[in-house]
Amino acid sequence: MLAVFSDEATLAHALAFERALAQAQAAEGVISAAAAEAIAQACRAFQFDVEGLGDEAALAGTLAIPVVARLRASLPAGEAAAALHRGATSQDVADTVMMLQAQRGAALLQADASRIDVGLADLAMRHAQTPAIGRTLLQDALPISFGLRIAHWRAGIADAARRLQSDVTEHAALQLGGAAGTRAGMEGKGAAVAARMAAALDLRDGPPWHGRRNGSAAIASSLGMFIGALAKMARDVSLLAQNAIGEAREPLTAGRGGSSAMAHKRNPTASQIALTAGVRAPGLVAGVLAGMAVEEERGLGGWQAEGPALADLFLLAAGAAEAMAGVAEGLEVDDAAIARNLAAAGVGEDIGESAAITAALLEQKRRD
Amino acid sequence: MLAVFSDEATLAHALAFERALAQAQAAEGVISAAAAEAIAQACRAFQFDVEGLGDEAALAGTLAIPVVARLRASLPAGEAAAALHRGATSQDVADTVMMLQAQRGAALLQADASRIDVGLADLAMRHAQTPAIGRTLLQDALPISFGLRIAHWRAGIADAARRLQSDVTEHAALQLGGAAGTRAGMEGKGAAVAARMAAALDLRDGPPWHGRRNGSAAIASSLGMFIGALAKMARDVSLLAQNAIGEAREPLTAGRGGSSAMAHKRNPTASQIALTAGVRAPGLVAGVLAGMAVEEERGLGGWQAEGPALADLFLLAAGAAEAMAGVAEGLEVDDAAIARNLAAAGVGEDIGESAAITAALLEQKRRD
Amino acid sequence: MLAVFSDEATLAHALAFERALAQAQAAEGVISAAAAEAIAQACRAFQFDVEGLGDEAALAGTLAIPVVARLRASLPAGEAAAALHRGATSQDVADTVMMLQAQRGAALLQADASRIDVGLADLAMRHAQTPAIGRTLLQDALPISFGLRIAHWRAGIADAARRLQSDVTEHAALQLGGAAGTRAGMEGKGAAVAARMAAALDLRDGPPWHGRRNGSAAIASSLGMFIGALAKMARDVSLLAQNAIGEAREPLTAGRGGSSAMAHKRNPTASQIALTAGVRAPGLVAGVLAGMAVEEERGLGGWQAEGPALADLFLLAAGAAEAMAGVAEGLEVDDAAIARNLAAAGVGEDIGESAAITAALLEQKRRD
Amino acid sequence: MLAVFSDEATLAHALAFERALAQAQAAEGVISAAAAEAIAQACRAFQFDVEGLGDEAALAGTLAIPVVARLRASLPAGEAAAALHRGATSQDVADTVMMLQAQRGAALLQADASRIDVGLADLAMRHAQTPAIGRTLLQDALPISFGLRIAHWRAGIADAARRLQSDVTEHAALQLGGAAGTRAGMEGKGAAVAARMAAALDLRDGPPWHGRRNGSAAIASSLGMFIGALAKMARDVSLLAQNAIGEAREPLTAGRGGSSAMAHKRNPTASQIALTAGVRAPGLVAGVLAGMAVEEERGLGGWQAEGPALADLFLLAAGAAEAMAGVAEGLEVDDAAIARNLAAAGVGEDIGESAAITAALLEQKRRD
Repeated sequence: MLAVFSDEATLAHALAFERALAQAQAAEGVISAAAAEAIAQACRAFQFDVEGLGDEAALAGTLAIPVVARLRASLPAGEAAAALHRGATSQDVADTVMMLQAQRGAALLQADASRIDVGLADLAMRHAQTPAIGRTLLQDALPISFGLRIAHWRAGIADAARRLQSDVTEHAALQLGGAAGTRAGMEGKGAAVAARMAAALDLRDGPPWHGRRNGSAAIASSLGMFIGALAKMARDVSLLAQNAIGEAREPLTAGRGGSSAMAHKRNPTASQIALTAGVRAPGLVAGVLAGMAVEEERGLGGWQAEGPALADLFLLAAGAAEAMAGVAEGLEVDDAAIARNLAAAGVGEDIGESAAITAALLEQKRRD
Repeated sequence: MLAVFSDEATLAHALAFERALAQAQAAEGVISAAAAEAIAQACRAFQFDVEGLGDEAALAGTLAIPVVARLRASLPAGEAAAALHRGATSQDVADTVMMLQAQRGAALLQADASRIDVGLADLAMRHAQTPAIGRTLLQDALPISFGLRIAHWRAGIADAARRLQSDVTEHAALQLGGAAGTRAGMEGKGAAVAARMAAALDLRDGPPWHGRRNGSAAIASSLGMFIGALAKMARDVSLLAQNAIGEAREPLTAGRGGSSAMAHKRNPTASQIALTAGVRAPGLVAGVLAGMAVEEERGLGGWQAEGPALADLFLLAAGAAEAMAGVAEGLEVDDAAIARNLAAAGVGEDIGESAAITAALLEQKRRD
Repeated sequence: MLAVFSDEATLAHALAFERALAQAQAAEGVISAAAAEAIAQACRAFQFDVEGLGDEAALAGTLAIPVVARLRASLPAGEAAAALHRGATSQDVADTVMMLQAQRGAALLQADASRIDVGLADLAMRHAQTPAIGRTLLQDALPISFGLRIAHWRAGIADAARRLQSDVTEHAALQLGGAAGTRAGMEGKGAAVAARMAAALDLRDGPPWHGRRNGSAAIASSLGMFIGALAKMARDVSLLAQNAIGEAREPLTAGRGGSSAMAHKRNPTASQIALTAGVRAPGLVAGVLAGMAVEEERGLGGWQAEGPALADLFLLAAGAAEAMAGVAEGLEVDDAAIARNLAAAGVGEDIGESAAITAALLEQKRRD
Repeated sequence: MLAVFSDEATLAHALAFERALAQAQAAEGVISAAAAEAIAQACRAFQFDVEGLGDEAALAGTLAIPVVARLRASLPAGEAAAALHRGATSQDVADTVMMLQAQRGAALLQADASRIDVGLADLAMRHAQTPAIGRTLLQDALPISFGLRIAHWRAGIADAARRLQSDVTEHAALQLGGAAGTRAGMEGKGAAVAARMAAALDLRDGPPWHGRRNGSAAIASSLGMFIGALAKMARDVSLLAQNAIGEAREPLTAGRGGSSAMAHKRNPTASQIALTAGVRAPGLVAGVLAGMAVEEERGLGGWQAEGPALADLFLLAAGAAEAMAGVAEGLEVDDAAIARNLAAAGVGEDIGESAAITAALLEQKRRD
């Protein structure tokens, strides 16, 4: 996920935007094929001076300005230089790059979500009939099956993963509007150019959305939910792993879970990662939602806040999902401890319809 | 919306839950028909002592405890008293009531969203070809059509309203799990009882979801997006209504928009309502997301935080939607001011593909 | 705390504002003594039609407009009617009322904070030398003294209470600026009028602060910290009260902590209240901070969002503080369980400098 | 500010912690002088393999573990290796490093705050008597002096800067507690060792605070307020810079404020930076507050969330403060536009007590 949001990837997507724009405009006759080819060539030859670009972008307030300036400088003066970035604006690049990254980020998350799905389904089935004490408000309550709790983890995570994918699929659309969102300067071929670009970049086509931030808000909030569902699992794992309870514990991972002061401890470090993400995510989502009320055709502060928040959310989600995937695949369950704790509660072993509910939860497919 | 979340409505839904539970259990033979009838009768006869119940609920930490206690006290000792609330727990009531209110709340919001949709579509069409200055980063940029900006407002609000409805439809499900979520104590008929209850209460059926808070999180974040989309429109209206710009202003509403110090002012009070909601909503959404990591079968703090936050979000959304519906239906557009500002910008009148984009945006249906 | 933020209290403060304004203006010769007396009399005779006023205030967007209108209607036309609310504006009333409520709210919180302070100091001293297992990342770590943990609770809460009081003392200032914040219309006596009003209302004097929202932001964030410190104590109490640990549990409170499904349970309901507040508070604080960037002399959305958020924060803080005060005064500590858990950990009984650290923490005064 | 929070700085502070610990322990006779010298030497010779360490730290969940492991590996087996990190734990390092960075970060911010203070005081004085239209709810209201608005910006920023510094001064304390916060393993010399370390690192001394997160919460919320006060100024500047208003605009900065599509525009890019920070900060503050309820002696998720959020807040504050310092020093004020807009409002030129209020605001010192 670090690679998805690296400066290099951001830059590569920005170049892909400029190249796709030029090629689409050439195909529609807005610029010449020669100009498009020269631009594509300049994009391929672009020097990835990430640090220098970063400084210029920080000053300019957007990456597109220095990238376009450097590309232009590398083109012969004349038609190609004039054709570069034609009809586009900085936010077109920034928004399109953000959605390309959201697509790739979501794909990575779905892979970990699948690992969790399989791991937890297996665990839930194995313990579908194991009586365990259920706990409410952190107090022993009545028996459940141990697998039922796990089936709930799985269902929550799967539901959130599905929602996230649905949001990304719906909102990962090309942004191409130009300076004021009218696709001026494209000789009336803006819609056709956009359609070609969307196809080339594998994004949805549609009207510009620079002033409607629903997409970022939807993706951010679905990431927040996904992280929340992972944090729920992590919360339970860390509670079950308490020494006095000991019903489950995280698998050993080399280099993880140690203590600089107590070598004997096995810390629930994967759960810590997911819980930390769970603490951070809600505020990051709030920041994206707070940015929706952008001013007119391009706001001042709101949409510029989205990029870093979305990147943070994807990174937190990736860390949490990877950590909990390892737990889902290797959770160590202690049947004796489960039985001991249940007996201590003194509330019998009637697990009600736990097995049927577990089965019903497992039946729900994660994805079609 | 105040009525939807009033103490009276909450109590009425709680009684509906108990009645539906008893009737479903009678239909499945878990309790006798006579007991169910006595319980239904007790629910109908319940005294709405809202204040007294409020105090007891505050102390008990949940409304269900005093409601069930009072119902039980009103039943003859014996079968009916024992059958009351059988196999259910406080959270079953609280969660089910919350979803009943979400359903009703969403329906109210959709009504205002429809008014906005119609009002803005009409405005957008009327001004689809009116050249106006587009503004980016609060600076004059290039021409757009005045209707294009309005079509974006409409599309953003419609998209958010659709998402909200989809979330409510998906997640407004009965919660029936009992003390530990196993549907124990229902003689193996829990799933059948739940199916009957869901049908009676017009909620979705399914496994209990007490420990998976995706539904509240989804609805909260969609409310946050809906409010954000309304705040975007409000931001623009308030900017357009500035005296030095004067391109549009809110319609006059009796009793609204006045100033206690300056009788001549026309304040954009509807926009103020939506913008205030836009400031408050993101933090409320964050609070709901932060509550997802509930402990085991019933958490301590997380889910209890959802109810008030969801109620606040629905109330804020309702205030904002009603206010902006009035604006959508009565926005006063000043064509002369639009023309004057455009001329002052000195950037010509080329609105690019504004009209086509407006048409494309208007084509997208709000709802099927 | 409900009384502090009730509609009645809000209205009484608004009337106190108008009365103090008239009396201060009379003392400075801005209006006549007779007019001031008539206004004071009208304020005393004001009918508390809370519901009707609420509707009008909702429509007008501020309470001051209908209050002033009704007061004026109750005065004879002429000098007194003209003198009413002279040089003031709605936000002057709203901001001043908010600070009067913050003062009173803070006083209530300090009373509960003192109870907690005394209760926890006593508990910490009693257990200053009791060896107990310390836990990190929810795993048994090394021994601490049981009192040390409690001394940390106390220190965190006391520090936050001190900061809250300091913020309220610093920022609870009169707001008197008039329509644009210039104290126009007071014949150059604005500063003198403000000084008299501040003295009469027992608020700090100073320049108007309508456009600087530091005060609300400071108080909100200190409330958030205070709630966070209470939630920390609640978290630990609820963990210690787990059946498998059993080192402490909340005192019994009649009507509290029960379960509608399991009569034998003793739920940590006080902790639940504080933890719920801890989930809700951060987002409410965020909402107040988000409102700071108000537009020019009076913003649109930002400051209007403060009032409800501050009221919610005070109410949550009051609920949490009252609940944890009861716990601080009555926590049931089980020495045998503490010893048993420590022995089970097998890490000896060396509590290091726990006693000295506890003493150092207890030495820090809560307030000067 | 990037340098303050760079990996290199973090690592250097961690090494400073280990060195100061060893030297303090040697001075107190807990370890030998030779061991301390060897450790100090190893710290000086440490290879800054930032990338490799980052990977190991990510896996271990904390930087201290790989740093201590590498230091130990570089020491001869025996006394010095055993003396390294004695009695300390990972969180001691992390918390102390965070406070060292907060100190340095705050110092940078105060420098920019001073520039703003001087620049705005000068501007406010120059325009203390300039009549301008005041605006409320984005509508023309009554006259103010142009300097009064600026004096409010200054007062808000100065107040927030003062509060931030006060919080950093109060809470930038050494953390030294060891595995469970008892300072075990230091032969009863823990308090004396801590006092020496605090002096060496120029931090406040006191009991460990690992389980009381008031310091991070206080600093985070004061950063949020500081950013909010800067965003308020930015909001006004961007509104005043609108073409139709034109009363002020940001100074030209080479490479800043351009548009990739419209070369003629002068965008309020400094304001954009501050407004973006203002959108992001509240959620980041919420994340830190949400982490306060840490579990027992070292929590799982809460405190681990603080570091990145505090770093982001410092970086956002630095960007916003630097940007607004440039604006404070170079704001271009257009007296003719001010006069024109005032005349257009038709509300006269009575600026009330604007000049006196401006003077009162300017009298308040920024710092003692």
